[in-house]
Amino acid sequence: MNTEFGSDNTAGTPRQILDAVAAAAAGQAPPYGADSWTASLERRLGEIFEREVHITLVNTGTAANALSLACLTPPWGGVLCHRDSHLIGDECGAPEFFTAGARLVTLGGANTKIDPDELAAAVRRGAGDPHKVQPSALSITQVTETGSVYTLPEIRRLTGIAKEAGLRVHMDGARFANALVALDCTPAELTWRAGVDVLSFGTTKNGTMTAEAIVLFDRDLAPELTYRVKRSGQLGSKLRFQAAQILGYLADDLWLHNARHANAMAARLRAGLAAVGFAIVGDPRANIVFCQLPQRIIDDLHGLGFGFHADRWGPGICRFVTSFATTADDVDALARAAERVAA
Amino acid sequence: MNTEFGSDNTAGTPRQILDAVAAAAAGQAPPYGADSWTASLERRLGEIFEREVHITLVNTGTAANALSLACLTPPWGGVLCHRDSHLIGDECGAPEFFTAGARLVTLGGANTKIDPDELAAAVRRGAGDPHKVQPSALSITQVTETGSVYTLPEIRRLTGIAKEAGLRVHMDGARFANALVALDCTPAELTWRAGVDVLSFGTTKNGTMTAEAIVLFDRDLAPELTYRVKRSGQLGSKLRFQAAQILGYLADDLWLHNARHANAMAARLRAGLAAVGFAIVGDPRANIVFCQLPQRIIDDLHGLGFGFHADRWGPGICRFVTSFATTADDVDALARAAERVAA
Amino acid sequence: MNTEFGSDNTAGTPRQILDAVAAAAAGQAPPYGADSWTASLERRLGEIFEREVHITLVNTGTAANALSLACLTPPWGGVLCHRDSHLIGDECGAPEFFTAGARLVTLGGANTKIDPDELAAAVRRGAGDPHKVQPSALSITQVTETGSVYTLPEIRRLTGIAKEAGLRVHMDGARFANALVALDCTPAELTWRAGVDVLSFGTTKNGTMTAEAIVLFDRDLAPELTYRVKRSGQLGSKLRFQAAQILGYLADDLWLHNARHANAMAARLRAGLAAVGFAIVGDPRANIVFCQLPQRIIDDLHGLGFGFHADRWGPGICRFVTSFATTADDVDALARAAERVAA
Amino acid sequence: MNTEFGSDNTAGTPRQILDAVAAAAAGQAPPYGADSWTASLERRLGEIFEREVHITLVNTGTAANALSLACLTPPWGGVLCHRDSHLIGDECGAPEFFTAGARLVTLGGANTKIDPDELAAAVRRGAGDPHKVQPSALSITQVTETGSVYTLPEIRRLTGIAKEAGLRVHMDGARFANALVALDCTPAELTWRAGVDVLSFGTTKNGTMTAEAIVLFDRDLAPELTYRVKRSGQLGSKLRFQAAQILGYLADDLWLHNARHANAMAARLRAGLAAVGFAIVGDPRANIVFCQLPQRIIDDLHGLGFGFHADRWGPGICRFVTSFATTADDVDALARAAERVAA
Repeated sequence: MNTEFGSDNTAGTPRQILDAVAAAAAGQAPPYGADSWTASLERRLGEIFEREVHITLVNTGTAANALSLACLTPPWGGVLCHRDSHLIGDECGAPEFFTAGARLVTLGGANTKIDPDELAAAVRRGAGDPHKVQPSALSITQVTETGSVYTLPEIRRLTGIAKEAGLRVHMDGARFANALVALDCTPAELTWRAGVDVLSFGTTKNGTMTAEAIVLFDRDLAPELTYRVKRSGQLGSKLRFQAAQILGYLADDLWLHNARHANAMAARLRAGLAAVGFAIVGDPRANIVFCQLPQRIIDDLHGLGFGFHADRWGPGICRFVTSFATTADDVDALARAAERVAA
Repeated sequence: MNTEFGSDNTAGTPRQILDAVAAAAAGQAPPYGADSWTASLERRLGEIFEREVHITLVNTGTAANALSLACLTPPWGGVLCHRDSHLIGDECGAPEFFTAGARLVTLGGANTKIDPDELAAAVRRGAGDPHKVQPSALSITQVTETGSVYTLPEIRRLTGIAKEAGLRVHMDGARFANALVALDCTPAELTWRAGVDVLSFGTTKNGTMTAEAIVLFDRDLAPELTYRVKRSGQLGSKLRFQAAQILGYLADDLWLHNARHANAMAARLRAGLAAVGFAIVGDPRANIVFCQLPQRIIDDLHGLGFGFHADRWGPGICRFVTSFATTADDVDALARAAERVAA
Repeated sequence: MNTEFGSDNTAGTPRQILDAVAAAAAGQAPPYGADSWTASLERRLGEIFEREVHITLVNTGTAANALSLACLTPPWGGVLCHRDSHLIGDECGAPEFFTAGARLVTLGGANTKIDPDELAAAVRRGAGDPHKVQPSALSITQVTETGSVYTLPEIRRLTGIAKEAGLRVHMDGARFANALVALDCTPAELTWRAGVDVLSFGTTKNGTMTAEAIVLFDRDLAPELTYRVKRSGQLGSKLRFQAAQILGYLADDLWLHNARHANAMAARLRAGLAAVGFAIVGDPRANIVFCQLPQRIIDDLHGLGFGFHADRWGPGICRFVTSFATTADDVDALARAAERVAA
Repeated sequence: MNTEFGSDNTAGTPRQILDAVAAAAAGQAPPYGADSWTASLERRLGEIFEREVHITLVNTGTAANALSLACLTPPWGGVLCHRDSHLIGDECGAPEFFTAGARLVTLGGANTKIDPDELAAAVRRGAGDPHKVQPSALSITQVTETGSVYTLPEIRRLTGIAKEAGLRVHMDGARFANALVALDCTPAELTWRAGVDVLSFGTTKNGTMTAEAIVLFDRDLAPELTYRVKRSGQLGSKLRFQAAQILGYLADDLWLHNARHANAMAARLRAGLAAVGFAIVGDPRANIVFCQLPQRIIDDLHGLGFGFHADRWGPGICRFVTSFATTADDVDALARAAERVAA
């Protein structure tokens, strides 16, 4: 197997999470989330977010995103998002499917962060005109697809523009923990205190196996979401096994530890690549590093068994992703190899 | 906690499956099913079904059913199914959602098995008339919702009627293993040799945690299914953890052992209830027992901590479901309590 | 061409409606319903229904029905309707399409009128259970598909049951005028005073060419309906031409005259067929007559050039539909021919 | 009423079309397109397009476009179109609704014509990757929304790129006749000989009242289209009245005459505005003229009763549309008024 920097979803799962699952395996429990693990998790997330929340456990980040958006937009609505977001590029039209045909309205902005002026121009475009898709929701991604992180003022500015126009706000937090530790803020500050109504609380990339959560800060959306979840085949019967994974993930701050580690490994990698003279692309603040490399070096590194993607973003643009499972040795080996082949 | 006969999804998971998951947890693996566990599982299921199959792993039986049907019917099609099937009664419209609005056309038949004459009358109803929903697929449930089991000749008769009219055939095998051991036949005989094109291969009720498989015998459906799976948020990134569960489930015939055990516990329960003089309802052959009880006895048994559903099928109709985790002591305790409260 | 009793949609259109269209043809007018004809029609229907209404003009009765229902049910809802309604049998799944996958939940009842007890049992079935399709709307057809007519007390009883359970009510009035004159009541009594929220106000079968109206008594539904109409390609640009048709249809009580005539022709036909000794089927009160005939006589009548359907409802069951264009001579010719071939 | 240049859908309908409708109004005719008018129209369009075609009559251009696309793309597909096309900007998400959630993938290009290089880059983007929306169809608009017209070589270049990648091609011909006479080519050259599979054959803007046609050059799509049309409430029962409109439109080359007139009026308007010194915007070749005017002049012209849109495309950008009903006097009055207020 390669030394893998292809994605943070190539990692396995830590022992603590396996243990939490094993501890949940014995005995009978009510199905479909009526179990005590799920109830504990809802309480625990309420503590973490410093308010009552409604949680829903699903299988994938795509499901979390698409279900969240389906509660925020009618079929004739538009969801404003960055043109390079996961929603647009990596979900095979899941948002359109779950919303019964709403449209993703794409906006630009440097470093994959939505430009506030573009947002301000879009939030009222066509509003009230039956010929036009109606602006209905804003979705922001934290960490972005290129590893940048919205600051709290940046989030509040975007959500302010959206809310003034009557739109609700979703955050795709597939790498929520990585953003949280990068910003060194509280979960509440990063979400509802900054104007977020619904959060895709990702946990798989940072440690769990098959569990993602939708966190509703606006609990009025809960009944609708409940039917949508069942109707989309996302309501697990033995839901305790997904709840247990996330309980294990949250216990003893494992999630924060994992995210800090992944971010630190990315910082180490940035430093290593920059030291060889390679240009870091964008504004990486978390566990994703984009870098421009000569094709010959890309080929050589691939040949040496380092796994990373270099074929999606234009000539020479490479993406390296670190995770809780990335070791300093992995990073140093990559940096040394890059130096060697560049020589 | 109750002694639970409410459903086979209240059980946890056996040690062997936990071990299989733990063994898959270390190291890096390609995401989205490009891992070696998923490949092994596809090979293993090919052996079990005695032919090449295409497999897709999803999170729930509802997703398996709805995705399967979406590949078998256009939006203007009708899916012929029993009026008391899970598709109709327990999926909150998932088939309609995934198919973009196809219709479930319900048929009757004794013991929740589709009546062949009703099917024969329905397969060509409205065919070719643009004002009518077009008969497109047949879905049969094995084990049925009331615990009966289609015999192989019964299946072949239904699939023959369907196929002669150009319909394709889906089997909802949420309790596939329980039917298989009840009939003492091979997986191939129960499926493609009997005319089944697509199988929802259930494993959660019989032991796994969060894993169900769609087995395509008609591999031409694979490309379409692949996009539908991603688009519905069902493509797990760390798919090895779902594959590992099912590999553990199949290893050393654990699945057959579990199913035989559950069926035997149900037989023991039927005998126990009948011995007290209670009427068994329908034609139970697997791990579900319906029984008519006086309301007073239902109340008393609930009061004694026995969990089972009695509020869904008419006055006094109770359902008891056994699983791999049900013990003979559980069953005997229930039978003795029933005898006692009936005295 | 046959003497046609196949349907009331085989007729053309009266001179008055052509004149109304011709009068609207000259000059410029704002598109999409901002014209004065559409405004006049909304006022005129407000007078006819004795309250403010919101109207929407569409192309077909199927569109009127499906759009109406889409405003009354979420995708996970069930629409309660008679099992022999047009919604189920003749719209190729349009309700499912427009509602994004809601389900038609079918009820029985004599003479194609919903049985109140069946309705009462259905309105709360599964309510609040996320595994179940949620009862959301009632749809009643007036005139029914077999020519019977709900009395006002019958309608109020059904709508009362529905509304007590929180469901809203749609009336499929493809033959609204025929029912109105059969009952000799006011449009208000037949609709909102009897608990109807949304009406498909059919006009094509009774005289116009390409115009049907949705009448909202609950004007709060108007914004949603407006987007749905545009989104479904039903918002005509030169909408004045549809409004003009209906204005012509309503002027000088042409609609009531046409409906009385059609009903009278049906009564004459019933009398004629009964006089020959043929059994009238059901409880016809408007412009549809079902009759049981020997196959030989069916064949002979068809051979003589009389057009009617005999192949859809079981052996020997024939349907005859009259319209504003049916003449007494047409009816008498049929009756005489039936007498002759029966001799 | 204003002297109206707001759109070509503010005009009424010519006498010839009213006469054709009146001639169709008497007598009985089979419903749903089984009538002789519809059959005649299919033959007539076959002559005009110099090959057998399958035609479907619908109510609006939005329906024609969305139904056409629904036959060309799966729900997980992408429809490549210009970013300023009617599909994107003026149909309230109808393409997404009819396709069950396919995506409009927008491309740029000067004068609202798709840039071939952008198309070439897009036709294979993500193909075969289940995470990506799959490029499935190309839609080009002729005349474009800004009044430009694709030349035949331009169309063939785009369709060639699309077809080589396996995409099928739709033409939105809401103003087909205006393009046809502008190019002075044959209908066949403009469509199937240039690689178009499906045409939205618009007639309403150029003369009819409530009739648009979908013309299938690939007749294999007909069965699917037939169900989609019924299911979307677009199958008119008295379809002869839509067929008669188009027969009247085609008779004696009325459609070509009308289009030539509208184009000539636009040319006259361009000349008039340019003579005053106003800048014509884009590359108008048909019956739409964009012009940059000072806001004061816009206000003055509006105040003088000239109807045109000036609020949708940026400061000072005005759109004038001419139709068969526009007179030279209308145009000259506008030009003189512009000159006067500019003085």
